[in-house]
Amino acid sequence: MQKRDLLMIPGPTNVTPTVLAAMSQPTLSHVSPKVASILKETLAGLSRIFKTTGLILPLAGSGTLGEEIAVANVIEPGDRVLAISGGYFGDRLSEVASTLGAKVDVLQVPWGRVADPAEVERKLSSASYKALLVVHVDTATGAANPVEKLGAVAKAKDALFIVDTVCSLGGMDVQVDAWGIDVCFTGSQKALALPPGLTIISFSSKALKAREERKAPIGTYYGDLKRWAPVMQDPTKYFATHPVNMIYALHESCKMILSEGLDARFARHAKLAAAFRAAMRSIGLRLLCAEDISASTLTVVYYPDGVRDAEFRKTMAEKYGIVVAGGLGPLSQKVFRVGHLGNVNRDDLTATIAAVEGSLAEQGYRFTAGAAAAAANRALSTRSA
Amino acid sequence: MQKRDLLMIPGPTNVTPTVLAAMSQPTLSHVSPKVASILKETLAGLSRIFKTTGLILPLAGSGTLGEEIAVANVIEPGDRVLAISGGYFGDRLSEVASTLGAKVDVLQVPWGRVADPAEVERKLSSASYKALLVVHVDTATGAANPVEKLGAVAKAKDALFIVDTVCSLGGMDVQVDAWGIDVCFTGSQKALALPPGLTIISFSSKALKAREERKAPIGTYYGDLKRWAPVMQDPTKYFATHPVNMIYALHESCKMILSEGLDARFARHAKLAAAFRAAMRSIGLRLLCAEDISASTLTVVYYPDGVRDAEFRKTMAEKYGIVVAGGLGPLSQKVFRVGHLGNVNRDDLTATIAAVEGSLAEQGYRFTAGAAAAAANRALSTRSA
Repeated sequence: MQKRDLLMIPGPTNVTPTVLAAMSQPTLSHVSPKVASILKETLAGLSRIFKTTGLILPLAGSGTLGEEIAVANVIEPGDRVLAISGGYFGDRLSEVASTLGAKVDVLQVPWGRVADPAEVERKLSSASYKALLVVHVDTATGAANPVEKLGAVAKAKDALFIVDTVCSLGGMDVQVDAWGIDVCFTGSQKALALPPGLTIISFSSKALKAREERKAPIGTYYGDLKRWAPVMQDPTKYFATHPVNMIYALHESCKMILSEGLDARFARHAKLAAAFRAAMRSIGLRLLCAEDISASTLTVVYYPDGVRDAEFRKTMAEKYGIVVAGGLGPLSQKVFRVGHLGNVNRDDLTATIAAVEGSLAEQGYRFTAGAAAAAANRALSTRSA
Repeated sequence: MQKRDLLMIPGPTNVTPTVLAAMSQPTLSHVSPKVASILKETLAGLSRIFKTTGLILPLAGSGTLGEEIAVANVIEPGDRVLAISGGYFGDRLSEVASTLGAKVDVLQVPWGRVADPAEVERKLSSASYKALLVVHVDTATGAANPVEKLGAVAKAKDALFIVDTVCSLGGMDVQVDAWGIDVCFTGSQKALALPPGLTIISFSSKALKAREERKAPIGTYYGDLKRWAPVMQDPTKYFATHPVNMIYALHESCKMILSEGLDARFARHAKLAAAFRAAMRSIGLRLLCAEDISASTLTVVYYPDGVRDAEFRKTMAEKYGIVVAGGLGPLSQKVFRVGHLGNVNRDDLTATIAAVEGSLAEQGYRFTAGAAAAAANRALSTRSA
């Protein structure tokens, strides 16, 4: 039997055979009527998933490139911005903004906690900020920031609101227009359940205006929304060559997501996440985040004393074929991270829980065998899917 | 029968089922040992194809992003550079350098001609230039610049040598180290015969030094070679998520290219290109480029009087299923462009020639029917493949 890996990392996630098959259709011309029509349909699907009527750019690149493009269009060198950081990717967001010349004030939140909108409001009132930057769900922590409330704060202070939804969009509700998100960027390999290789960025009319009215010339060519906007209007026009096969895959993934239904999809993620947390707690494991701020897309679990990270993850991978992630930054060796996003289902989750039990037991951790599996089953039965 | 499109445009090119199958293998973790090993093998293959021992970065993005990354690492705002332009992509190269803050002097070459090394040398001697920028083969014209000679000129003047090989590498000889190319960038969808979605950039030790010693901070985060270099050394390290499935495809494509053999591959391209040019001339068509500067990867052909571009390409596509490209910029409506690169073979070429004959005849162009096909066959028989 060929070894299969079940990816329970917070991205890349397991891609369905249907999406892989769509991706492997023959490459056609990037400006052909067929590819233009697929791209138009894909953009319409993305508008529904992002819940925006703004400009959407699906581009070849990683989430990190999307982050750079998000900032590069609307922030000018010397602009003062407020960046909330509570994890590895919050740090990255402020680093990207600094690299592009912004004066970045960081509002530091302890890892595993989220920003307090009242504190953000006070900080935003203390100086003139061009933008507020935040990561919805930091892939390092699994804490879900209150994006809707932060959006209201940014709007009240007339700051542009830039949100990293790499680890949330497609698995948790993100209402770009209703929540006042001016620039929203994500990657393909998380809850959208595609292979990595695409970044998707949306821009509100306020963001387009900021691009239009900038005084300093823009410092990127490929990432300039003004060069892409006409192409998204009419994809038979050329600016740079679309990643045609990845667009096929994105097209299929949008269909799949909308056919499940966004509400059902978010409910599935929430339910599986809650079950996973319940399972971990039932065998005495401590979670990084409190229940009320826990993301639906990943969970960060502290190792009990005496359990070694490398050995644990090796057992998970080699004995069970289940890949989970280690901790990032200060949490390295101290936690493991489990992604339950994208196409994840009940069976993936219970298999993972059984493997966690088995791998902990191998290192001598003592608990009531089967307790985690039982807790997950209870949690999965108590609410409707 | 399902309609097949034969792509005879200068990229994207026809991708083999083997490469498409490799690309659709299950997505694995970007930092897994398996993906790390595939990436290492791919980098080794790319070193042979680029003929360099320098740093190579295969990244999610388009050729245009590669262009931006090439310039952004080694050129600082205010640096004076000399950009040779003889086509749409030469113009783009100077535009990208300007966008990134360089003072760009353009050495303009008429479309369809190539740079004269002696003139470039005089120009380079007239001021202090940090770099010389050139497009090897401009996809708009099919003229092949004398990169080896230009490299010698750049080296003599101690200027960095940045070369766009999007429309040549993999189909024509590019000797990065021997020709003194400091930064070489290409895209995946041309002679490497992959779907679009990857850009590949190489940096010489001189380029690495320029990056290291720059005074102005670098203006890109995703494109900073210093962030990627450790990952290419040890791909289990993380900087940004690799486009895993595109890397599978690139791995397969490198194997395919090296198994054909670089010399055989270049000879195949040269021979098919010469046959195509002979065929076009045999029915009285005028080519944009002189024989001695014609690229092996594409040919640009003037329409005879009375033949309309849109109608011609429509007949080619709908009646023959063969997609050719129109002219860019000032050549729009005046020429058609045929790409014969990547996996192209004798049958693709003769089918295209027959379709060109048929499509011209439909618009009343008069010529000896079958002459082009006969000329191609003669050309294909006179030299060994």
